[in-house]
Amino acid sequence: MKQIDVCLTPELLHLHRMDNTIVVVADVFRATSCMVTAFAYGVDCIIPVATIDECRLWQERGYLAAAERNARKVDGFELDNSPFTYMQEMIRGEKVAMTTTNGTYAITRSRSAVKVLVGSFLNLEAIARYLRSEPYDVLVLCAGWKGKVNLEDTLFAGALVDRMKSHFMTAEDSALMAWRLYQQGKDNLLSYLANSSHIRRLQRLGIQRDITYCLQHDLYDVIPVLRGSSLVSMEL
Amino acid sequence: MKQIDVCLTPELLHLHRMDNTIVVVADVFRATSCMVTAFAYGVDCIIPVATIDECRLWQERGYLAAAERNARKVDGFELDNSPFTYMQEMIRGEKVAMTTTNGTYAITRSRSAVKVLVGSFLNLEAIARYLRSEPYDVLVLCAGWKGKVNLEDTLFAGALVDRMKSHFMTAEDSALMAWRLYQQGKDNLLSYLANSSHIRRLQRLGIQRDITYCLQHDLYDVIPVLRGSSLVSMEL
Repeated sequence: MKQIDVCLTPELLHLHRMDNTIVVVADVFRATSCMVTAFAYGVDCIIPVATIDECRLWQERGYLAAAERNARKVDGFELDNSPFTYMQEMIRGEKVAMTTTNGTYAITRSRSAVKVLVGSFLNLEAIARYLRSEPYDVLVLCAGWKGKVNLEDTLFAGALVDRMKSHFMTAEDSALMAWRLYQQGKDNLLSYLANSSHIRRLQRLGIQRDITYCLQHDLYDVIPVLRGSSLVSMEL
Repeated sequence: MKQIDVCLTPELLHLHRMDNTIVVVADVFRATSCMVTAFAYGVDCIIPVATIDECRLWQERGYLAAAERNARKVDGFELDNSPFTYMQEMIRGEKVAMTTTNGTYAITRSRSAVKVLVGSFLNLEAIARYLRSEPYDVLVLCAGWKGKVNLEDTLFAGALVDRMKSHFMTAEDSALMAWRLYQQGKDNLLSYLANSSHIRRLQRLGIQRDITYCLQHDLYDVIPVLRGSSLVSMEL
């Protein structure tokens, strides 16, 4: 039977094998939710980069630049890391360079996997359906916060385990823990997350609307997949 | 307000500060439960060591040798890592050298803290009472399993957070997650743990009795504390 495992932060990635495995990266507040939204609204590709400077270089080559550092937009860039930024006609067909605090790091760390997919609650069922149809094991990689675990990405992992559990084995406790937390919180994720560290940070920044949006399940039938160093939309 | 935080595995310890902090190490199945039991039955000290060979050297100097590798006893040693081994008159006043897969590693990694305490469900309230009376922040360090998180140590962390939460702040999601899992499972920890990876391993080894024992709360008013390179019983 295929196996699904959960890596609670990129700091633990070296403990997981990547061969024969599809990695699903989640940074639900807000990088991967932005990416999924961007593809749902027709961007051509997204190149995840590590630094603001690298983002500027791509901007000079005609990419739209999107960046966040500590949950705030960077001066001079076209896009910030609110998913609502990507809901506009002007982004259709465009190339985007995006750097985020945690999500980009998680994606670039996963390159040796069979495939790297971008997951969020917004495309949960699209991801689950695809993984069920593939012969590979699955590793959900939570982007976390500066190396530490966070509740929202863990809940996404639990939601994906929940959708997969009749088709996959869970070998490790992290998958079990994520699934149990999701079971406990799924009826009202927003209030379940109310005391989490990231929600407290984001609420100080006044982006409650983003949070509510990012917690919606199955809004888009879109799967961003890493090809070379760019994310593109998988043909479904 | 003082702060309580949870480190889900020693692999994440570098992300936590240790200054002004008391570390509570938990490896509840079974190293730290053994240590607490041993002190409750009157051992003089326990020296946690990294390797079987080091354990043998202490044995030659008159220590009782206790070891487990992959949850099995080592040949030629007086004690294994079942807590029931320590419930005998012959251990009173003795010195013990103990090496375990995960617990020893977690203890030795914590040496730079203000104090390192050994925690288990068996001495939960003794630990909680002591920490409430001290001016320091608290970090619960889960020993985990070969670097990965495990459910049982996380549940202990959650239990300690539960006893401390009116006196301490939790800043990080790991503490919140541990507490939520404990809330969900506390009415029947044994069945809550039934699908965890360690329980499945231990059940194959036929030590159900140890598991049931290790999950009992507040059995002993004992706190093992690291002094130099040995654990001794704190004067209460």
